[in-house]
Amino acid sequence: MRRSVFSEEHEDYRKTIRSFLESEVLPHYQEWYDAGQVPRELYTKLGDLGVFGIEVPEEHGGAGIHSFKFSAILTEEATRAGIHLGGSGVHVELCLPYLLKLGTEEQLKRWMPGFVSGEEMWAIAMTEPGTGSDLAGMRTSAVRDGDHYVLNGAKTFITGGVLANRVIVCARTSPPLEDNRRFGISLFCVDTSSEGWAVGRKLDKIGLRVSDTAELSFTDVRVPAEDLLGEENEGFSYLGQNLPQERLGIAYHAYAQAAAAIRFTKAYVEDRKVFGTTVASFQNTKFELAACQTEVDAAEAVCDRALEAHDAGELSAVDAASAKLFCTEVAGRVIDRCLQLHGGYGYMNEYPIARLYADTRVTRIYGGTSEVMKTIIAKSMGL
Amino acid sequence: MRRSVFSEEHEDYRKTIRSFLESEVLPHYQEWYDAGQVPRELYTKLGDLGVFGIEVPEEHGGAGIHSFKFSAILTEEATRAGIHLGGSGVHVELCLPYLLKLGTEEQLKRWMPGFVSGEEMWAIAMTEPGTGSDLAGMRTSAVRDGDHYVLNGAKTFITGGVLANRVIVCARTSPPLEDNRRFGISLFCVDTSSEGWAVGRKLDKIGLRVSDTAELSFTDVRVPAEDLLGEENEGFSYLGQNLPQERLGIAYHAYAQAAAAIRFTKAYVEDRKVFGTTVASFQNTKFELAACQTEVDAAEAVCDRALEAHDAGELSAVDAASAKLFCTEVAGRVIDRCLQLHGGYGYMNEYPIARLYADTRVTRIYGGTSEVMKTIIAKSMGL
Amino acid sequence: MRRSVFSEEHEDYRKTIRSFLESEVLPHYQEWYDAGQVPRELYTKLGDLGVFGIEVPEEHGGAGIHSFKFSAILTEEATRAGIHLGGSGVHVELCLPYLLKLGTEEQLKRWMPGFVSGEEMWAIAMTEPGTGSDLAGMRTSAVRDGDHYVLNGAKTFITGGVLANRVIVCARTSPPLEDNRRFGISLFCVDTSSEGWAVGRKLDKIGLRVSDTAELSFTDVRVPAEDLLGEENEGFSYLGQNLPQERLGIAYHAYAQAAAAIRFTKAYVEDRKVFGTTVASFQNTKFELAACQTEVDAAEAVCDRALEAHDAGELSAVDAASAKLFCTEVAGRVIDRCLQLHGGYGYMNEYPIARLYADTRVTRIYGGTSEVMKTIIAKSMGL
Amino acid sequence: MRRSVFSEEHEDYRKTIRSFLESEVLPHYQEWYDAGQVPRELYTKLGDLGVFGIEVPEEHGGAGIHSFKFSAILTEEATRAGIHLGGSGVHVELCLPYLLKLGTEEQLKRWMPGFVSGEEMWAIAMTEPGTGSDLAGMRTSAVRDGDHYVLNGAKTFITGGVLANRVIVCARTSPPLEDNRRFGISLFCVDTSSEGWAVGRKLDKIGLRVSDTAELSFTDVRVPAEDLLGEENEGFSYLGQNLPQERLGIAYHAYAQAAAAIRFTKAYVEDRKVFGTTVASFQNTKFELAACQTEVDAAEAVCDRALEAHDAGELSAVDAASAKLFCTEVAGRVIDRCLQLHGGYGYMNEYPIARLYADTRVTRIYGGTSEVMKTIIAKSMGL
Repeated sequence: MRRSVFSEEHEDYRKTIRSFLESEVLPHYQEWYDAGQVPRELYTKLGDLGVFGIEVPEEHGGAGIHSFKFSAILTEEATRAGIHLGGSGVHVELCLPYLLKLGTEEQLKRWMPGFVSGEEMWAIAMTEPGTGSDLAGMRTSAVRDGDHYVLNGAKTFITGGVLANRVIVCARTSPPLEDNRRFGISLFCVDTSSEGWAVGRKLDKIGLRVSDTAELSFTDVRVPAEDLLGEENEGFSYLGQNLPQERLGIAYHAYAQAAAAIRFTKAYVEDRKVFGTTVASFQNTKFELAACQTEVDAAEAVCDRALEAHDAGELSAVDAASAKLFCTEVAGRVIDRCLQLHGGYGYMNEYPIARLYADTRVTRIYGGTSEVMKTIIAKSMGL
Repeated sequence: MRRSVFSEEHEDYRKTIRSFLESEVLPHYQEWYDAGQVPRELYTKLGDLGVFGIEVPEEHGGAGIHSFKFSAILTEEATRAGIHLGGSGVHVELCLPYLLKLGTEEQLKRWMPGFVSGEEMWAIAMTEPGTGSDLAGMRTSAVRDGDHYVLNGAKTFITGGVLANRVIVCARTSPPLEDNRRFGISLFCVDTSSEGWAVGRKLDKIGLRVSDTAELSFTDVRVPAEDLLGEENEGFSYLGQNLPQERLGIAYHAYAQAAAAIRFTKAYVEDRKVFGTTVASFQNTKFELAACQTEVDAAEAVCDRALEAHDAGELSAVDAASAKLFCTEVAGRVIDRCLQLHGGYGYMNEYPIARLYADTRVTRIYGGTSEVMKTIIAKSMGL
Repeated sequence: MRRSVFSEEHEDYRKTIRSFLESEVLPHYQEWYDAGQVPRELYTKLGDLGVFGIEVPEEHGGAGIHSFKFSAILTEEATRAGIHLGGSGVHVELCLPYLLKLGTEEQLKRWMPGFVSGEEMWAIAMTEPGTGSDLAGMRTSAVRDGDHYVLNGAKTFITGGVLANRVIVCARTSPPLEDNRRFGISLFCVDTSSEGWAVGRKLDKIGLRVSDTAELSFTDVRVPAEDLLGEENEGFSYLGQNLPQERLGIAYHAYAQAAAAIRFTKAYVEDRKVFGTTVASFQNTKFELAACQTEVDAAEAVCDRALEAHDAGELSAVDAASAKLFCTEVAGRVIDRCLQLHGGYGYMNEYPIARLYADTRVTRIYGGTSEVMKTIIAKSMGL
Repeated sequence: MRRSVFSEEHEDYRKTIRSFLESEVLPHYQEWYDAGQVPRELYTKLGDLGVFGIEVPEEHGGAGIHSFKFSAILTEEATRAGIHLGGSGVHVELCLPYLLKLGTEEQLKRWMPGFVSGEEMWAIAMTEPGTGSDLAGMRTSAVRDGDHYVLNGAKTFITGGVLANRVIVCARTSPPLEDNRRFGISLFCVDTSSEGWAVGRKLDKIGLRVSDTAELSFTDVRVPAEDLLGEENEGFSYLGQNLPQERLGIAYHAYAQAAAAIRFTKAYVEDRKVFGTTVASFQNTKFELAACQTEVDAAEAVCDRALEAHDAGELSAVDAASAKLFCTEVAGRVIDRCLQLHGGYGYMNEYPIARLYADTRVTRIYGGTSEVMKTIIAKSMGL
């Protein structure tokens, strides 16, 4: 169905991105994939393209556009091409909203140029070993010492954590209040070249191979007080504020993965011959792909409706949870079916469908698991 | 999520309908259900309310509004209340488009007053015993004899067929052409009080108990030539033209059934106590209902997007097929899960969830089976 | 796969049953179905055939065989033929074990002749309006008064409750103990012609139309003390003891329903022509039926393994729960898919698939819901 | 439920294997996993343990037991421990049956000692780039030249292909006959140190990381005529003969993967705390694991029944297809649900659940895809 969310301006942006990916990324991607890492230059190239500055105010070097649509297009196009852009999603979809919302003029002046150009890549470190979705239980601490905070602790599952230049770290600055477990968390934008900052193992994941997911540890890392983001002790409330956008971003990613799976599979089954005919000619193939397309159509409707709501400032936490839950489950189902139509090739990582299969599994987990989404939705139903 | 398809005018209509259903239908509905039939007066009351005339031109007694949104609202509200309005859906969603598209001024002048007032209820008779979705194989014939056609044959699965006053009958007027199997079908608007018109058994269905689904048989029924609808022999092409709207209507019905299932189930689990607590308090209940709500949210997004496209004249056959396939499958899954949360009561027809379960099963079949939908979608994908 | 549970003797019994059903039941079954009731004589005919006496000791007129295999065969054969034998399952699978386990010699002498001959049909009344699976909450009471108990209360969902001559009624004879909620329930074998015994509505169910499911109410029903079954106040513990067999019986029923669905569907798709070919010739049809057959094969393996264990006295509560849960879910999935292959005919109750669809839904509910089964299984896993 | 297929002797074997895996494999397994390869010595150790000789006749150094039960136990135990034994499954479950069935006394005398001791590991090379399940289309050729055959061509997806010492290669020795496409294939047991034998890339797969799956290419490889296995040109018929056992082996593997997933998940959720309580304490966790256990129970019943049939020489092609289809689908569903209960850790390869997830996907593909299984089953149903 014709999508009504994107204007001509958006479609121009889409063309720019598609052409960039085809000329600058696709020819090298297998190499990056085998290396398990996108090259650092990719980020500055994306910066040059203007990708990181869309929502950054003009006075800080950006385009000053208040819309998530460009992000959605970037996700759609990269995923369509079978590409994962490493830490750039975290940089712009997860970190930027905190900076724009909480950063002082002084901070923005310091950080935005590098952010927009891609010379300084950002990540965010919330999860700790053993806490998962239960952020209030975090144990990383930051103790004020003169004009610095001294940071100690460890984080895990930090996407982009190996290459990042600056990381938004959530740490406890005060004990929780008896009547408010959420009090006492603060956010710091920490320079990863600081002494005491250590990047642990790059985690060995099922998929997302080019995305560097790391463990971090902090031993007496001295963080200048001017790198505190927002109010001290109020970090927990900030964390929640960006969740709808983060989840909408995951919903788009999952939707785009499912759509890409169909695209790759259609090409495969039309090309591949078995028993003297193409795989595409079997009724089972047609019905499987039609069923998948129907689910992808629905995911598109869900995403696009949520995107319009988000741009209008109306995307609630529960709307975003519903969109994430739905689209990630669609992606799981669709990609599994599409892989099956590839036979043995579907299990080989040189085929994009195999990568999609491995990549998509985490979308039902990160940004809040499906179970957390259901909890949010049930609550909103009064249950 | 806030729905953007309905304006204030639509919401006023919704209120009117809801209030009508609550005062005029709900108090009697169990009685009608037990009788397996809505009373004839229901239709004239709906006519009085203006329900049948929304899309009828003003010169023929209607409101002249070119929009399917009012139909969608009627479906949503009746279904929400656990009500099936018998043959009124067929009357207005299935029959009217043919009449408006193909009817001559003379025909509209004759038929519209009764149509709008509900004094003349319409149905449509396509399927024959043994043909199913394969309409080109039909064997009912109409042979020209002077200024009449003589109709012979039989039809089955005719919704509203018992109470209807006039039925659009598809019959073969010429043999199929060698290169065009679809040639030779014509449509007739037949008065059901004609001699030779016989209503067979009311079919015993799994559900839709108040909807009279009948077998019809025609023995030398003489149909005046002025009751031919559209061009002779071109009926097959007409039949396809209303399918997108018919399927959109089914999609809305299925979506509304699923939404109603959640509503009834929520009320049930909040009321029902087991092991000293409400069923609503179990995590399983919450997660099941949240999962259902997420699917219903998606169905709503799908329907609403298709409805906007339809009102804009842009709903393609494949768009409608995708919406029907998706929403009817959602309804199947959601209602099954909701019924389960009712325990033994869910199996009792006095509970609305049981009726929804029995009713919804046919939505994956009529208006074209899910397999037909997949065939349409696969074709549109180039498969 | 060849089944190893049945010997030649069993297969002879199967032939007897099959031939009985074909000659004595099938020719009349549509009539019974339309009437919503099997005729009373069916039970005496089944009695004559020896069906009710298999497990009854020889001194009480039975065959004295300690095996559930004959019951399984009866279920398989009736279900295979698309037949439901009304209350006979409750009579022999649910009631008999209580009588054999708890009945005194005197009681057996009184009751067995009529039981075996089918002249006295039995039912069992546990569930009350509002208690569901939570039996400890029951409110029907039996108060000792001389050599009688006076019974007051109400029961619901009583299968066979309309035609039964004697009903095992669970009633509270003492308040629960503080440390044992289960204390205080007793079982009575109540003559349904007693004064004060009232049969309420025959409940209107989604399916199981020939099975009379009733509400019962008791107003000062005087029950002779010699009709107490087992020890006073210990009824709750008895109730649990037969659950494995009851659930195994339901598992077989569900398995047999799924197998029958495939059988009916195979015949339908081989016969039915559409677009000039049989429905059976489509790859989708083949794959759907093959997938269904695979699930039915698994259900058969599960049932047969459990049956051997049961006959060996080794079927645990959790084994039975797992078998019931699995087979009833298989039946739900398989029958839904088989119905779909029937198109519109699948929705018509004159087709056995439609009845199977409506009938099977309750198997996930009665005898303990799927949720109760999961609770049992989780506990046995130490969760 | 108590399993009846295994005797005390089998359980002793199980203990031996379990203890071997715990002492000799588990302590090093992460290292092997990271290296993507089990060490060569593992195979000789397994040989010492007697694992490879169970079914080998005593005169050739084996135990001469005609039973697949020991293989099933090895699979169960390795999988239970989260271990994949590299190419040993192919060696003993896939290759040995061909050798025992087709090998001459002279061949067995030459090959069995190394086979049994694990000093000579075997693999089998059927699939070619572009042929998949359609073996009749193969293009590798072997042309007689004196007392040698000259082998040319390429194979892919060869499990164990990197480390194998000898590979059963299927090659075309004659063109297909007009009325018998299957004629003309022969089997050769080729020494991998032969000139012209080349091992291509180790394929990069979603999972099965320690299993070396390779591409092979043959350039004028001279194979001594005495290494022809069975009759020339009759290879195709041989290939089919071992399929039931191969598929039974995959069914066991899949069943054992699902069972292992539950075991690992149970340990995880009991240990893991979130929001102040264990994950195991949530009803959702309990219900998910109970549902998984029920499916695993069914898979066990299916496997065990098929195993008894196989040892009795009665396992038909369709029985094996049904078992494979069922168990691999169960594994897919169960492992996905179990992974979800791990949250983010489930996506990390250091957790066994992540490896199971990646490993199990191929079981629905290799040994014949699920679609091929359905085709076999449908045919056996007469469809």
